[in-house]
Amino acid sequence: MERSRKNRRRSGRTQTAPSAPPRAPFIQRKLGTFNVLNEEGLSLIEANADQILAETGMEFHDDPECLELFRQAGCDVQGTRVRFVPGFCRKTIQVTAPAQFVQHARNPANNVQMGGDATVLCPSWGPPFVHDLDKGRRYATHGDFETLVKLHHSLPWLHHSGGVVCEPVDLPANKRHLDMLYSHIRHSDRAFMGAFIGAERAGHALDMAKIVFGADFMAENAVLYCVSNTNAPLVMDSHMSGALKTYARAGQPVACSPWVLTGAMSPTTVAGTLAQVLAEALATLTLVQLASPGAPCLMGSFASTMSMKTGAPTFGTPEAGLLVLAAGQLARRLGVPLHTVGTLSSSKIADAQSQQEAAWGLLMSMFAGANVINHATGWLEGGLVTSFEKTIMDHDLCGKVGRFFDGIDLSENAQAMAAIAATGPGQHFLGSEHTQSNFMSALFRPLTPDDSAFEQWQAAGSQDTTTRANRIWKETLEGYNDPGLDPSIDAELKDYMAQRKSETPDMDYF
Amino acid sequence: MERSRKNRRRSGRTQTAPSAPPRAPFIQRKLGTFNVLNEEGLSLIEANADQILAETGMEFHDDPECLELFRQAGCDVQGTRVRFVPGFCRKTIQVTAPAQFVQHARNPANNVQMGGDATVLCPSWGPPFVHDLDKGRRYATHGDFETLVKLHHSLPWLHHSGGVVCEPVDLPANKRHLDMLYSHIRHSDRAFMGAFIGAERAGHALDMAKIVFGADFMAENAVLYCVSNTNAPLVMDSHMSGALKTYARAGQPVACSPWVLTGAMSPTTVAGTLAQVLAEALATLTLVQLASPGAPCLMGSFASTMSMKTGAPTFGTPEAGLLVLAAGQLARRLGVPLHTVGTLSSSKIADAQSQQEAAWGLLMSMFAGANVINHATGWLEGGLVTSFEKTIMDHDLCGKVGRFFDGIDLSENAQAMAAIAATGPGQHFLGSEHTQSNFMSALFRPLTPDDSAFEQWQAAGSQDTTTRANRIWKETLEGYNDPGLDPSIDAELKDYMAQRKSETPDMDYF
Repeated sequence: MERSRKNRRRSGRTQTAPSAPPRAPFIQRKLGTFNVLNEEGLSLIEANADQILAETGMEFHDDPECLELFRQAGCDVQGTRVRFVPGFCRKTIQVTAPAQFVQHARNPANNVQMGGDATVLCPSWGPPFVHDLDKGRRYATHGDFETLVKLHHSLPWLHHSGGVVCEPVDLPANKRHLDMLYSHIRHSDRAFMGAFIGAERAGHALDMAKIVFGADFMAENAVLYCVSNTNAPLVMDSHMSGALKTYARAGQPVACSPWVLTGAMSPTTVAGTLAQVLAEALATLTLVQLASPGAPCLMGSFASTMSMKTGAPTFGTPEAGLLVLAAGQLARRLGVPLHTVGTLSSSKIADAQSQQEAAWGLLMSMFAGANVINHATGWLEGGLVTSFEKTIMDHDLCGKVGRFFDGIDLSENAQAMAAIAATGPGQHFLGSEHTQSNFMSALFRPLTPDDSAFEQWQAAGSQDTTTRANRIWKETLEGYNDPGLDPSIDAELKDYMAQRKSETPDMDYF
Repeated sequence: MERSRKNRRRSGRTQTAPSAPPRAPFIQRKLGTFNVLNEEGLSLIEANADQILAETGMEFHDDPECLELFRQAGCDVQGTRVRFVPGFCRKTIQVTAPAQFVQHARNPANNVQMGGDATVLCPSWGPPFVHDLDKGRRYATHGDFETLVKLHHSLPWLHHSGGVVCEPVDLPANKRHLDMLYSHIRHSDRAFMGAFIGAERAGHALDMAKIVFGADFMAENAVLYCVSNTNAPLVMDSHMSGALKTYARAGQPVACSPWVLTGAMSPTTVAGTLAQVLAEALATLTLVQLASPGAPCLMGSFASTMSMKTGAPTFGTPEAGLLVLAAGQLARRLGVPLHTVGTLSSSKIADAQSQQEAAWGLLMSMFAGANVINHATGWLEGGLVTSFEKTIMDHDLCGKVGRFFDGIDLSENAQAMAAIAATGPGQHFLGSEHTQSNFMSALFRPLTPDDSAFEQWQAAGSQDTTTRANRIWKETLEGYNDPGLDPSIDAELKDYMAQRKSETPDMDYF
């Protein structure tokens, strides 16, 4: 153990346990998926989605160009309503959409594979509030945003810098996307997401990415990532379709992700919700492929349940688990990667509920074979809050699923037959040479749990998990290593932002 | 919703949500299992277990009769060491052990199936301490034991009354098994476990069960349940083998359950531990079948990891998950049901860590296809504490896995195609007739989570999950329905216990 202590001292960081596995840029799953529908069930859901698209269709609001694309492809367009011949969407997608692709980071060691056996874990997205034990719940600021980017960058079991890790409400709403993108580029060298709302902001994201990666590289490679939500049921508006087309035409990946609360935005039943989610995904993925054949895209699913008592979204529920597992099967049959969600919770604080729901949600998405998991850390209060402490707890889960899906090592060393024979009945393995040479790597060690005896725990202050997580995120931040940024790129980004900001007055709405 | 409120008032109980599914006596899984080893991996582990049994063998201490049984069956017995020809154990077990059986409860509606697609969830076992928010951590008493039996009996998503739900240390150690058994019989009408340690106490359990069920019924049916642990590595002592033989000869089920901490009682690697666990299970299951061919038995696995920093057991780890999933596969190939463990945690309190580990553990055991899950609720501090609040939180998990493994309803009603067509794009399903007629049953509702808005939660006192769980277990206890007990049986049990207690002086050790 002496060696590990020295290592820790040298790096000045205590948050990474000595037995932590070397950081992987993404999870490469060696285990299979868990299936909840058989062939008959899957065909039924697919037929129902086709029927919805043929009979009810989907509406595309305030985007005549998008209606024109569908019309040219032979779809039945009446007003803003588009109806699709059964099988058309599936075929359109399958002909040109890639099964997997790479999103490049400015540090190539952090490139992420999307699709196949890969899973990419991303932090919380979207909350207007942040919460930590010291300052409680408060509106998020750009300072919080930067702190979260740095924190995420320092967490070994996250893979992606994400997008709106919190909503910096102290910045003008119509310009803050520029500052957010800059923070990701400047303070992390992992892959990041683009601005989602509207074609104009999507364009800004492309411009800034070009400054970092170069136009030539970007023409051939994915460097941004766009989540495009529907307005369920069966509507997409121009904010989303505008960004979707902008990204698709630039060859940048779009996750077409219906977001539903069952009982409100979809039927209250799992089977009904699945057909609607698939219908919406098919229609919007078709839009991606019509706008830009061959553009990388993912089938998304963010299907949550709703409390029929309060109308509030609920998470970590059996039905949400079934929905994501079925969505995984449907995405694999469609032949595109699955984008979904992770450690969601409706709890107001990073307490027991938050971790029961977080563990449930992340495990279900992993068993579903999800390829990109958004909100893998920190998301609290139904998405209103990014919690610093929950980020740390969820990050342990990220590490645990990564190790779990590595599967069982069956090497001769791992079989340990000589150790069992040498130890013999009634003896212990603590002093065994096999234990000594394997214990540093054989067992994954999360950062937050306290495994000590009651008396030790009490002597150390009887801290609960949340209190330990508070210490860990601060220590982690202290150990943040600035990846640096080429000064000329930095200057060019700053110029670009200054120009964009000077073109319009600040506005506090979207 | 008016109807549900009335129902609650009528029953005088608030703990069962109106949409709670009707209580099932056990979970009947409609979904499959998750496999972590392929055919080659499974054969390798099986061959390694055979090699361990052939070359190292297993020791049976202080039980000459047990050595004689092995000798008569042709095994190589030298001193207390028994070695087995490869394949012998597997064949012996497969010829006579039943693949599934029923454990009867005194209320036949609570009979539990063990094996096949059934999972039976049992409460915490063994802790000498209890913990609740009001009185903190303290030595458990017989009063706590009775309270826990009544609480468990009132929880709809548990299936079994369990055994040593806590260790009543205020009663003499050599007699308390009588009081514990009586509490299960008197205060619950669910199935229960017997006393595990030593042939004499096992005999007392059989005697008391005969008073309740009748000797004739018991000769033909399982009414008790014995967990028989090894002293890993590769030892069984006479306390365990004595009880094992006593139960087996009475036709009562024995779960042969190696208990290991990797790195201490088995190799620190998953593959090495699996081979040892299988070897120990094979040898002890063979003992069951040699002592009483055809006796019901289960392969057990309680394989935890150990912190190599503190030597303390750790739970909810990736390796523990892999171990139980592989154990499930090995048990199915052997053809006996799997007994394992549930919501284990090393946390000292019912906090976030406790629920991250609990959710991980129970889900892994369910995906493993476990047939009996011990410690499905309440177990804390590495098994030193039964927590009242954690019992309630874990019980939500029990309900959630029950509903989850019901799978997806694909009925015409659940498909909701008419509702989707009638609602149409951009409208909501809240007022839909389909939602109105399905919302009470479509979504499972756990008892503990708070899904309300921040302001509502704050106005209600900003309670964390543990505080809510404290209220729930008290309300649940208030709603306890005494199942009653035939006065003549009650008197006979009391006479029996008085007689046994009068035969020896109180002793405070085992």
